[in-house]
Amino acid sequence: MSKNENSETNKTAATQTNQAWGGRFNEPVDDFVARFTASVNFDQRLYRQDIQGSVAHASMLCEAGVLTDVERDQIILGLQEIEAQIEAGDFPWSVVLEDVHMNIEAALTAKIGIVGKKLHTGRSRNDQVATDIRLWLRDQIDHIAPILTRLQDGLIGLAAQEANTIMPGFTHLQTAQPVTFGHHLLAWNEMFERDFSRLQDCRKRLNQSPLGAAALAGTTYPIDRQFTAQALAFDKPTENSLDSVSDRDFAIEFCAFASILMTHMSRMSEELVLWTSAQFQFIYLPDRFCTGSSIMPQKKNPDVPELVRGKTGRVNGHLISLLTLMKSQPLAYNKDNQEDKEPLFDTVDTVRDCLRAFADMIPAIESRPDMMYEAARRGFSTATDLADYLVRKGIAFRDSHEIVGKSVAYGLAENKDLSEMSLEELQQFSTEISADVFDVLTLEGSVAARDHLGGTAPAQVIAAASRAKARLGER
Amino acid sequence: MSKNENSETNKTAATQTNQAWGGRFNEPVDDFVARFTASVNFDQRLYRQDIQGSVAHASMLCEAGVLTDVERDQIILGLQEIEAQIEAGDFPWSVVLEDVHMNIEAALTAKIGIVGKKLHTGRSRNDQVATDIRLWLRDQIDHIAPILTRLQDGLIGLAAQEANTIMPGFTHLQTAQPVTFGHHLLAWNEMFERDFSRLQDCRKRLNQSPLGAAALAGTTYPIDRQFTAQALAFDKPTENSLDSVSDRDFAIEFCAFASILMTHMSRMSEELVLWTSAQFQFIYLPDRFCTGSSIMPQKKNPDVPELVRGKTGRVNGHLISLLTLMKSQPLAYNKDNQEDKEPLFDTVDTVRDCLRAFADMIPAIESRPDMMYEAARRGFSTATDLADYLVRKGIAFRDSHEIVGKSVAYGLAENKDLSEMSLEELQQFSTEISADVFDVLTLEGSVAARDHLGGTAPAQVIAAASRAKARLGER
Amino acid sequence: MSKNENSETNKTAATQTNQAWGGRFNEPVDDFVARFTASVNFDQRLYRQDIQGSVAHASMLCEAGVLTDVERDQIILGLQEIEAQIEAGDFPWSVVLEDVHMNIEAALTAKIGIVGKKLHTGRSRNDQVATDIRLWLRDQIDHIAPILTRLQDGLIGLAAQEANTIMPGFTHLQTAQPVTFGHHLLAWNEMFERDFSRLQDCRKRLNQSPLGAAALAGTTYPIDRQFTAQALAFDKPTENSLDSVSDRDFAIEFCAFASILMTHMSRMSEELVLWTSAQFQFIYLPDRFCTGSSIMPQKKNPDVPELVRGKTGRVNGHLISLLTLMKSQPLAYNKDNQEDKEPLFDTVDTVRDCLRAFADMIPAIESRPDMMYEAARRGFSTATDLADYLVRKGIAFRDSHEIVGKSVAYGLAENKDLSEMSLEELQQFSTEISADVFDVLTLEGSVAARDHLGGTAPAQVIAAASRAKARLGER
Amino acid sequence: MSKNENSETNKTAATQTNQAWGGRFNEPVDDFVARFTASVNFDQRLYRQDIQGSVAHASMLCEAGVLTDVERDQIILGLQEIEAQIEAGDFPWSVVLEDVHMNIEAALTAKIGIVGKKLHTGRSRNDQVATDIRLWLRDQIDHIAPILTRLQDGLIGLAAQEANTIMPGFTHLQTAQPVTFGHHLLAWNEMFERDFSRLQDCRKRLNQSPLGAAALAGTTYPIDRQFTAQALAFDKPTENSLDSVSDRDFAIEFCAFASILMTHMSRMSEELVLWTSAQFQFIYLPDRFCTGSSIMPQKKNPDVPELVRGKTGRVNGHLISLLTLMKSQPLAYNKDNQEDKEPLFDTVDTVRDCLRAFADMIPAIESRPDMMYEAARRGFSTATDLADYLVRKGIAFRDSHEIVGKSVAYGLAENKDLSEMSLEELQQFSTEISADVFDVLTLEGSVAARDHLGGTAPAQVIAAASRAKARLGER
Repeated sequence: MSKNENSETNKTAATQTNQAWGGRFNEPVDDFVARFTASVNFDQRLYRQDIQGSVAHASMLCEAGVLTDVERDQIILGLQEIEAQIEAGDFPWSVVLEDVHMNIEAALTAKIGIVGKKLHTGRSRNDQVATDIRLWLRDQIDHIAPILTRLQDGLIGLAAQEANTIMPGFTHLQTAQPVTFGHHLLAWNEMFERDFSRLQDCRKRLNQSPLGAAALAGTTYPIDRQFTAQALAFDKPTENSLDSVSDRDFAIEFCAFASILMTHMSRMSEELVLWTSAQFQFIYLPDRFCTGSSIMPQKKNPDVPELVRGKTGRVNGHLISLLTLMKSQPLAYNKDNQEDKEPLFDTVDTVRDCLRAFADMIPAIESRPDMMYEAARRGFSTATDLADYLVRKGIAFRDSHEIVGKSVAYGLAENKDLSEMSLEELQQFSTEISADVFDVLTLEGSVAARDHLGGTAPAQVIAAASRAKARLGER
Repeated sequence: MSKNENSETNKTAATQTNQAWGGRFNEPVDDFVARFTASVNFDQRLYRQDIQGSVAHASMLCEAGVLTDVERDQIILGLQEIEAQIEAGDFPWSVVLEDVHMNIEAALTAKIGIVGKKLHTGRSRNDQVATDIRLWLRDQIDHIAPILTRLQDGLIGLAAQEANTIMPGFTHLQTAQPVTFGHHLLAWNEMFERDFSRLQDCRKRLNQSPLGAAALAGTTYPIDRQFTAQALAFDKPTENSLDSVSDRDFAIEFCAFASILMTHMSRMSEELVLWTSAQFQFIYLPDRFCTGSSIMPQKKNPDVPELVRGKTGRVNGHLISLLTLMKSQPLAYNKDNQEDKEPLFDTVDTVRDCLRAFADMIPAIESRPDMMYEAARRGFSTATDLADYLVRKGIAFRDSHEIVGKSVAYGLAENKDLSEMSLEELQQFSTEISADVFDVLTLEGSVAARDHLGGTAPAQVIAAASRAKARLGER
Repeated sequence: MSKNENSETNKTAATQTNQAWGGRFNEPVDDFVARFTASVNFDQRLYRQDIQGSVAHASMLCEAGVLTDVERDQIILGLQEIEAQIEAGDFPWSVVLEDVHMNIEAALTAKIGIVGKKLHTGRSRNDQVATDIRLWLRDQIDHIAPILTRLQDGLIGLAAQEANTIMPGFTHLQTAQPVTFGHHLLAWNEMFERDFSRLQDCRKRLNQSPLGAAALAGTTYPIDRQFTAQALAFDKPTENSLDSVSDRDFAIEFCAFASILMTHMSRMSEELVLWTSAQFQFIYLPDRFCTGSSIMPQKKNPDVPELVRGKTGRVNGHLISLLTLMKSQPLAYNKDNQEDKEPLFDTVDTVRDCLRAFADMIPAIESRPDMMYEAARRGFSTATDLADYLVRKGIAFRDSHEIVGKSVAYGLAENKDLSEMSLEELQQFSTEISADVFDVLTLEGSVAARDHLGGTAPAQVIAAASRAKARLGER
Repeated sequence: MSKNENSETNKTAATQTNQAWGGRFNEPVDDFVARFTASVNFDQRLYRQDIQGSVAHASMLCEAGVLTDVERDQIILGLQEIEAQIEAGDFPWSVVLEDVHMNIEAALTAKIGIVGKKLHTGRSRNDQVATDIRLWLRDQIDHIAPILTRLQDGLIGLAAQEANTIMPGFTHLQTAQPVTFGHHLLAWNEMFERDFSRLQDCRKRLNQSPLGAAALAGTTYPIDRQFTAQALAFDKPTENSLDSVSDRDFAIEFCAFASILMTHMSRMSEELVLWTSAQFQFIYLPDRFCTGSSIMPQKKNPDVPELVRGKTGRVNGHLISLLTLMKSQPLAYNKDNQEDKEPLFDTVDTVRDCLRAFADMIPAIESRPDMMYEAARRGFSTATDLADYLVRKGIAFRDSHEIVGKSVAYGLAENKDLSEMSLEELQQFSTEISADVFDVLTLEGSVAARDHLGGTAPAQVIAAASRAKARLGER
């Protein structure tokens, strides 16, 4: 870009009307309004996709006879130079030029002259930005998916390792039944498995090319939408030009995926925070994932899970932003839609960073089997096993439930766990109880007995981890 | 149910502890608390799925040797009688019995005695309710999907019929370029096409059987989870018991689908409201979809689209309810989850009714082609065509844009549309303009020229409607 | 109401057009549409306020000379009879008559003839419903406020009682510093104090009379808006008729108050759930606020706080519903606004029930001072006190922080709390430490030393409880 | 800061543990985690308030005898130099130092040595950040309030000017009754009046000093919380230390205010967009508040209102972010709370910019009274007046409503407005109609007749504008 042209494009809005659309305007846009309505500060992030789309468009225009080979090559070379310049941090982004598209086009024209202006033939900023965002989001999905896979891989690995570690299972945060730590970890993995599936469905639906929709109605130029769709690795061109430039449901769908994922991560986080508390002490988190206190020297705070839990709010908020944004908008493109980018960008960044933090952290979790075991031992966690035992002795479940309830009330009064009562004490509540009852009141017996698909028995956990691992392999 | 038993189950909470879990409790639940925590007032809606799940569970228990054939048959017959009783409106729902599950089980035991209590062997309310909701939501999806298809069918039919009707296309609610009404209608159809696809993806993901997860860890009984999964037409059993009873992501995913769908319907609604206004007058809505005013006799209000637009808020709200509900919940089941039902139920009802209202209304829309045409004729809607014309004469697009901008400024000053200017007037702005310019300044020429996949040309609209129709046929 | 008239108003929509606005309509509203657009199923809840408003309006019309004294009395008597009939459950609500207003007016006309129709002179359903909702919400606020006061009273009472009970204070759910249980309870009270203040501000802002705004522009009748405002105990009439019938910001403001309140209650709930867990055991909740498990007989689940925590989602959802509903609505009244009621109604019900449940439960909380004390004793909770001690010996805070950090690291390695180390052990880390250090390492010394306004010292807690109680007295 | 120290603070996390809390840590924080958990990139925005709070704290420590006069002066001077350095853009913010507080403290210590470390005596980052945010938000409120006042001033001015301009009033976007443009503008002003009142209530509630709450329990130093509260212009110190460091309800309340304000602005925006459309043409927006199209040269897009409408989503989203963030957090401070800042910052920025854009734009709106008048003339907008006329002739309102309904149906069929019908035509529907009917069928007569407080009569509008203006004067 020569010095002259550069200085011209840097004129403020106060002294000129915008080159792209100023013809019918009597006064320039107000300076504050220019800044208020400009998007270049955030949409410059789309520069790579913008250039990628322009290269495909130029190639297509050449195929269609609108550009000569020489013109096409000039354009592509110019765009590549601009891309290099941007990546080197040397590109003079200008708010007066509103957005990433106009900035790049102006730079191209400054660089190669009149030919640069031909690039915009047969397209509009409306289909251009719709293309850019889809390309960008597709790239991001392809970047996020392997991190999610890595997180799951870590979870499954840890689960296999902890298949025999007994911990209390909770409902209502009350000790319920003993489970294995590996089983608990695989519960999280199942949630992520569905999240991965949602992510892929989102990718599938967005992967259509809006290029060629032009402003809203298509174009009078002899464009080839299949050509650009293929060049940009889209599955196919979109079916309707009005829809292509006006809808953003793919971005909402991504944010919905992200909200569900973050909700899952918030649940993991809650448990990690609980488990590192002095009251639980079920796990250690390595120091490198924690921080301390400026005033309380003894503190080791589980900052990473806390922060991830907090970031759930941010992502839910972005989902609402986009839904509110699109509510009641008439077709086709409205300026409101400029607001689609920041929530999406921040959602992508948040999800990526949270996944990375967890993918790094999970394999480094150190369990404290002794604390888990002791916690499971307390709290009558094998009460259900006693009930089942009674049923096997021929008592109806609801009745056995009541017998065990009374035993527990007694245990609370006497401060004894079920396994600590004598046979005589137990027989107060049912004469069907005999010495073999103590087999089922052990934690090991309890978990081993839940030996079916999806159950917590160590053998089942090992098999489940293996299946889970195999599914990752198929991705 | 005999009179005696009936009166017993109607005792208030103040005078007895709950049969299902009262063993260890010293005092009954507070009366207000009993009402506050009971869910039967809304979850009775799951009765059919609850019975369906119980029948499958009883059959499986029989296969597994836990129940005899006679016991199974007693249970199934009893449940069928209860179902009939509920459908006849004769079932005495009791708040003291908390929820649909306990109400039905108590009635069964009252009916067939001790055998009824055996039904609960090897399961818990936790996996029972998880199964019920999935069955219920699957049924609802299968009810909603055809209504959405009917709505799309109506849209496509109307689009085919209106393929040649010219209207102004808007961006920023400013006249942009002429489009065909059929093309506009198909834009809506594309949105619904993606919504349908999301709905099916949601169904696919939820269609796994949690039955057998029991309270949280699986059960010690020799259950066959494949059997019940198959009996209930689930694709397979879920992989992890803790996950099965604690997650509700399928409900959130449905609500996300619904929010996007309602957002699409809110956009349609906004346009229908605009189009029936005195300022637009693009369409008539039949009287039967409108209401009047109690004070202004001349009013004919587009109530149905307005109400649908308003109901978007309700559905977005339910999505946030469920996301907030699940945020940070530790595994496995917590009482919080009782709050999953009402938002989901109301979302389903809202979506179903809104779809039905639109499916009925859309085919009855009567276009007013004269008003649409006149609106398109005004507002310089073929300005882009003039710009494209100039480009074909060899002028760079950005330059031709500026020439046209100046012509428009002149037209505004002189109150003349482009097609109303003389050749001399047009030639003020570019000497490249010659008499053939008037060919491209017509509306018909403009729409016909956008003749590519996804473009607004009547031929493309007819082809697109035909493809859209064919896709419906493949569902 | 005579039998004939009754049967007439029960004609279905299919056979007649609506009496209130049917004049210009050629076909009746579709049956499904009639049900879809009717609000009587939920807005009948406003009957008392609707009648109250009508009585005031009739009285004003009489003052203004539009009605005679006799007519006014007939109307008022008729309305009173209808109110009695509704409260007796004898009123035949009709969906065909759309809403509470038309139902009551039709019944009035059926009862007193032509005079009943005069009641609607100078008003519209638009200002009528705006008046009804404000009256209703004001009534509800006046019902909720004392329950909140009762909850606070219980909290403050318990706090005064527990002013000396030592528990661990947490940050990041890690033991931080010892605090008193009373101090913790008063933290909750402060949140509620602000919530109460927000509730009163909401009441203040909504308490203006929209009656007289008519459909949107005011009326041509000689109405006296001051008269009706005063009769209905509003502070004054609203300033602008268009605003009066179209805005619902008072409902959104109430829902925002409710969301913040529920967020506070969710935080209390979270802690109550934690504290009743086997890991914490800081408190007992009486059995009457808990429920059990259908499968695990030993369980005692803190259902009330869990459910309250879950209901936060519901209220946040309603807030979003109303914000989404109102977004982008052009003035004045649109049918969308019919959707304002259900979210508001359910928010009011939820808040009222949650407050009641907590107001009943809080005074019944039984603390377990031994468990709290033991938890505080562990976890180096007086580490900050050691740091402060060192500072008083002349060491800069940041340096003393590091000294204590190293002592804690040593304690972790040796499994000793600070107070369990010998003087020699402590002196390894700083020679400034002498025998008097053990005074500051006790829990009692630690809490007593935080003796300033807002600090946790028992004396401060007692004073704070007393101030808090006095503030309640001023309400 | 000397070069040596500077380079030391710039060591990466990988090579050292954090100075503030590293004592007990065995390994440094992971590099990515350091970036992930650092807040300095956004919380540096609080630098001014952080320094303001530190100056007050240092002054208080001096009064309390903890610092000498010389030490206090050194600290204050050092902080002032740092403030100047930051404002000059010369401050080396470091991610390793986590946040604004540690960055400034480290710089102070580098500058003045050991004394700098004493500043943190008797406080913690927890009360420090709580103080900073409140000070910052108070400053922002005091910046926003006058912009809102300016916007209202512009509205009221325009309203006074347009008190006689007749336009159609809409309900359901159907022409309802004629209103004056000034009256419509004042409806918006009333909404803003309540918003202003909410903003002031929010300020009132947040204006309490949390300084002295320390980490969570208060401090053992002899601090004087009244002193710092007064020095920082807070109304008083907060009552409870745990509450002070853990709640953020003031931020949620601000976001709720902002969501309601933006909802109001979205409604204004919607109307501005409608009114500038070719279909309405009620107003001109000056070119400087609009932008054009890159492809359609004739376009003049109302970008500012569209963008403001879109930004409603952003603010609603931030409200949900904060509500979700705080849901279920146990006391006291958790790392989650770090997420409170970005949503609040962006809400403030958005509200401020949108208000500024509208405050600039509103007075520049140019009405098109001819277009408004013509629109009001069409559409039977005086039908209610006819109904009222009939009532004055002794016909019950509901009956007159029906008569007018039939007249309108006739008018629609004959394409005649009511005022265009002959007396004979009108008399078909009621013999009570006589020649004086034409007085009430004029637009001027219609608006003038709504002559009561809050009505649309020009005289009322002028009086209302004058009262509104007077209220602004009292702020």
